[in-house]
Amino acid sequence: MNSFGRIFRVNIFGESHGPGTGIVVDGCPAGIPLAEDHFISDLNRRKGGSKGTTSRKEEDLPEILSGVFNGHTTGAPLTVFIRNKNIRPSDYESLKDIPRPGHADFVAMKKYSGFSDWRGGGHFSGRLTTSLVTAGVIAKKIISPVLCEAKLTEAGGAADIELAIRKAIENNDSIGGIVECRIINVPAGLGEPFFDSVESVLSHIAFSIPAIKGIEFGSGFNASRMKGSEHNDKIVSRDGRTETNYSGGINGGITNGNDIVFRVAVKPASSISREQRTMNFKTGKMIDLKIEGRHDLCIALRVPVVIEAAAAIVMADFMMLEQKIARINK
Amino acid sequence: MNSFGRIFRVNIFGESHGPGTGIVVDGCPAGIPLAEDHFISDLNRRKGGSKGTTSRKEEDLPEILSGVFNGHTTGAPLTVFIRNKNIRPSDYESLKDIPRPGHADFVAMKKYSGFSDWRGGGHFSGRLTTSLVTAGVIAKKIISPVLCEAKLTEAGGAADIELAIRKAIENNDSIGGIVECRIINVPAGLGEPFFDSVESVLSHIAFSIPAIKGIEFGSGFNASRMKGSEHNDKIVSRDGRTETNYSGGINGGITNGNDIVFRVAVKPASSISREQRTMNFKTGKMIDLKIEGRHDLCIALRVPVVIEAAAAIVMADFMMLEQKIARINK
Amino acid sequence: MNSFGRIFRVNIFGESHGPGTGIVVDGCPAGIPLAEDHFISDLNRRKGGSKGTTSRKEEDLPEILSGVFNGHTTGAPLTVFIRNKNIRPSDYESLKDIPRPGHADFVAMKKYSGFSDWRGGGHFSGRLTTSLVTAGVIAKKIISPVLCEAKLTEAGGAADIELAIRKAIENNDSIGGIVECRIINVPAGLGEPFFDSVESVLSHIAFSIPAIKGIEFGSGFNASRMKGSEHNDKIVSRDGRTETNYSGGINGGITNGNDIVFRVAVKPASSISREQRTMNFKTGKMIDLKIEGRHDLCIALRVPVVIEAAAAIVMADFMMLEQKIARINK
Amino acid sequence: MNSFGRIFRVNIFGESHGPGTGIVVDGCPAGIPLAEDHFISDLNRRKGGSKGTTSRKEEDLPEILSGVFNGHTTGAPLTVFIRNKNIRPSDYESLKDIPRPGHADFVAMKKYSGFSDWRGGGHFSGRLTTSLVTAGVIAKKIISPVLCEAKLTEAGGAADIELAIRKAIENNDSIGGIVECRIINVPAGLGEPFFDSVESVLSHIAFSIPAIKGIEFGSGFNASRMKGSEHNDKIVSRDGRTETNYSGGINGGITNGNDIVFRVAVKPASSISREQRTMNFKTGKMIDLKIEGRHDLCIALRVPVVIEAAAAIVMADFMMLEQKIARINK
Repeated sequence: MNSFGRIFRVNIFGESHGPGTGIVVDGCPAGIPLAEDHFISDLNRRKGGSKGTTSRKEEDLPEILSGVFNGHTTGAPLTVFIRNKNIRPSDYESLKDIPRPGHADFVAMKKYSGFSDWRGGGHFSGRLTTSLVTAGVIAKKIISPVLCEAKLTEAGGAADIELAIRKAIENNDSIGGIVECRIINVPAGLGEPFFDSVESVLSHIAFSIPAIKGIEFGSGFNASRMKGSEHNDKIVSRDGRTETNYSGGINGGITNGNDIVFRVAVKPASSISREQRTMNFKTGKMIDLKIEGRHDLCIALRVPVVIEAAAAIVMADFMMLEQKIARINK
Repeated sequence: MNSFGRIFRVNIFGESHGPGTGIVVDGCPAGIPLAEDHFISDLNRRKGGSKGTTSRKEEDLPEILSGVFNGHTTGAPLTVFIRNKNIRPSDYESLKDIPRPGHADFVAMKKYSGFSDWRGGGHFSGRLTTSLVTAGVIAKKIISPVLCEAKLTEAGGAADIELAIRKAIENNDSIGGIVECRIINVPAGLGEPFFDSVESVLSHIAFSIPAIKGIEFGSGFNASRMKGSEHNDKIVSRDGRTETNYSGGINGGITNGNDIVFRVAVKPASSISREQRTMNFKTGKMIDLKIEGRHDLCIALRVPVVIEAAAAIVMADFMMLEQKIARINK
Repeated sequence: MNSFGRIFRVNIFGESHGPGTGIVVDGCPAGIPLAEDHFISDLNRRKGGSKGTTSRKEEDLPEILSGVFNGHTTGAPLTVFIRNKNIRPSDYESLKDIPRPGHADFVAMKKYSGFSDWRGGGHFSGRLTTSLVTAGVIAKKIISPVLCEAKLTEAGGAADIELAIRKAIENNDSIGGIVECRIINVPAGLGEPFFDSVESVLSHIAFSIPAIKGIEFGSGFNASRMKGSEHNDKIVSRDGRTETNYSGGINGGITNGNDIVFRVAVKPASSISREQRTMNFKTGKMIDLKIEGRHDLCIALRVPVVIEAAAAIVMADFMMLEQKIARINK
Repeated sequence: MNSFGRIFRVNIFGESHGPGTGIVVDGCPAGIPLAEDHFISDLNRRKGGSKGTTSRKEEDLPEILSGVFNGHTTGAPLTVFIRNKNIRPSDYESLKDIPRPGHADFVAMKKYSGFSDWRGGGHFSGRLTTSLVTAGVIAKKIISPVLCEAKLTEAGGAADIELAIRKAIENNDSIGGIVECRIINVPAGLGEPFFDSVESVLSHIAFSIPAIKGIEFGSGFNASRMKGSEHNDKIVSRDGRTETNYSGGINGGITNGNDIVFRVAVKPASSISREQRTMNFKTGKMIDLKIEGRHDLCIALRVPVVIEAAAAIVMADFMMLEQKIARINK
């Protein structure tokens, strides 16, 4: 459901054009220094701003509603709320009965029998990733010196990302991309058999991010084309360092002390300004839809900070379970 | 940990060379016809037998220890146990301090400080997939008419799988493969925002299967190279059928009523008969290791029935949560 | 932790003298009519006001932050926040190092190494029951026609409750009480073996309410003094009605269709105006403490609406699990 | 459902007259010395044998099916199975349609629409407490030096327990009792706000034990008749020792370092040899039922070891969560 993690437990809530979005983190260690301005930097990275991202401008000013006292986390549930300010629900009024192709509109209508908030995707909106980023800021603090670093390595199939964006703008069509994440300084022994392998839990959270369609660890899909004699990483030191890292830092679902490396495939944004054919569910007729509103041409540009947050949340939970993070940060 | 699912909850246990492997299913609907011989067919599909699979021969005779009465499930926890018979722990005695490259040996030693059962991988062994298959048999019954069908579509990078296996045997080296799974007759509306998207939960269980290194849904990694105008599936009927299925039957993490399609990348088996360099942790010296024992050259051959089971377990849980499966099968 | 329930899942957060208190309900069915003023009546019942309750006056105006659209729940997480207005943290400044006898001050200091919010009990304050009441309002709506009705049956050991309160005011000393709750129109078959008996789950949530020290179902502690021939309730109709109800409507942990009846023992409030001996942890010396601030003489007066809420939350979860409540309220 | 605990997680399964009963413990620390004969002593305490207990004699020989290697727990799921040997299902054949008064027969029939195992209560049988006791043996090992000690303090309303039993045998009627449990050497700070107070979690597991109808902590129901000035325990030392212990070692749901003290009320066994009136659900007629089979006159005699086990399981989970127990017992 809308919570993730066993010990460091993140709950998220909110809608794109409702009062706002937020998180409740349950199980956060006490004693972590935290203030509202600590969230700004990562929220800014997630925000629209550069070419190819939406023109909707949100201030994204987080308010701490509980769990912090005298500048530190208290151990009680930590609530952060970001009030929506620049909402334009009227942009979506006309789309009520016309599911946008590629969006969650149709499934939301089906799943909730018409009661879901259809304004800009409601709870299914990419705007909910503000919550992930917010929780990620806290997670990053507590997992230190473990670091999660993600970057866009490919857009529209090309390594020259700027060029790809320029072409997308010219074509007025959205493009996808590949984001690679590397987690460093990872202790060996994280991950839980049988069902909570590190890959299982990282992929679980990664696929909660809208627009992710694939994930691979280490050699990933290439592994299917390799031989065992090539693929096996040779252990070359007592602490488990390996010569190569085809396993992506994970064996048998457990971290081996090498860097965790994974890549996610981001699909092109579903909202495009071009006309698209779809069904009007009120009339039952096929129509040509041109989506107004403010959209991203390359959402992959905004994914790295979200993936970093997701990875940090997973690490925080595994490290607390393995008692690598104390419940009190003294 | 070793349980999966919220309502239809599968617990697994066991070791490769211990007394056996098993499952406890909690939350199984009452009234499902079930007998011990119902498991045989899928367990046989999983078993070694064809070329390229291990010569270890296990009877795999399941015993029902609880939860079935008068030929039907009772609603109480359902326990099935498969006793190991053809164990040869002595095959592994010499490997105690020498982690096999690519295996979980090193991480298990680290995580459990030397207390883990190192015989043939212990709890990390691929033998644990008997438990998944066993649970899958039950899940398949209760999700009907939803069907999960998986097949090996590529081995060693080639579509001609027989040839690929022959070459692997010649080379005495293991190879990987790609398994595709299709779930049909899926009701629209399964999956739970935000964190329990259908992709999240399917990937979670898929990556618990040893040797899986990647997963993609619908267009998958190709999506990263497509344009929005190409990728968006056009809705062409009131029940949500789409002209194409790049989304793999899932939008916003929720099923849209089209087939769910996903592919997993299987790495080459880590155990190979060739000499490999690794460290002897007792002496701290690098050595050349030749692994004895009975191994698979292409574990991907055995993965389809396991993936089907995993998919069926996920569907069972989502369908019970969404009240598409009654708690009593009257 | 700070969440309760498997399907209808209530998360609570907040502090007595922080920004406020609130809930996030995950798994609430879509389509339930809900507006902010629906909470007022039960919040008023919980509030101080009559003789014997605190003079702190809070408006308790709930704001819905997510999960409601067009006057109905959407199926997305439902967040309600009550901002604290009448806070007086300075009342507690001097108590920082002096744990009040009977309060959670000492354990909070120990558990969170001094990082907990010590103002008026912080997250341990009885003020958090606003969150239970808020969630209870939603639960009561969805379990209808099942009704939870609680009343104070005894205060300070006497059935004449008004008199008991008057005497407490005269003595300037707090008193305890007994609250009885009856749940009517209960369907048979709720509750889950082995660990989630109806008694287990009701007692779990009841003991989360501050000041509860005991709970008993049906004949309760009296059962220990009865004979089997007296205690066994005779089934007298096909739907399971029994002649007597010593079992309190529950057999083997499962509802039998008769009314559920339970009683909780409420201790006298720990905060009293009289001098009490305790330790100053800064100096290590024993001192005489007189607690300023605004307190209840008989918190039991405020417990009935909280117990009703708790019972309704439990019923909602069991009924959803048993598919007696649809996920969409059409 | 049939699992309990967040970190130290106990799953139980089995039936009274099926193949047997058992547990799977997930999350047990690695490195705990464990062998099959370690369970015998507590299982014997639970067993029938003394006057007033059933004449059914089970050997109760546990078999470890997974999770132990070289005499120590491995960190993998730990499975223990006790095969039923002395089963007499024919004793119950005639009761199929005639729910025994006070038993779970009626609710099981209702809940599972006739599919439940009705032989001797099936999964609802008191025989399932073998599983609790088995898990308790493991829990007791890992929580050391914390100790859980329970004893019968009252039977049939009298402190002279032997006499009470003698009279019950004379009357051929069952009697109830009170069991008191004391947990000593408890570290301060266990328990989790808001919903997982120590009372919440202890009562949750206590009420899963068949025949428990009430629980009280410290002063318990007496608290409702006390004044605050009497009830508040004075803190008299830096480590939180109090002069009195009316709180039962728990404030605000958190342990305060004093002994935890609680009492449970055990009802008289429902199975008695006297004739009782009930309904035959096949014919719809009221009949006089005389229950054959082998029964306890005072089940409370067997409860202390079960309560100890339950308490130890709770302590194990809280102590692991609070990182007071290491995941590896080196």
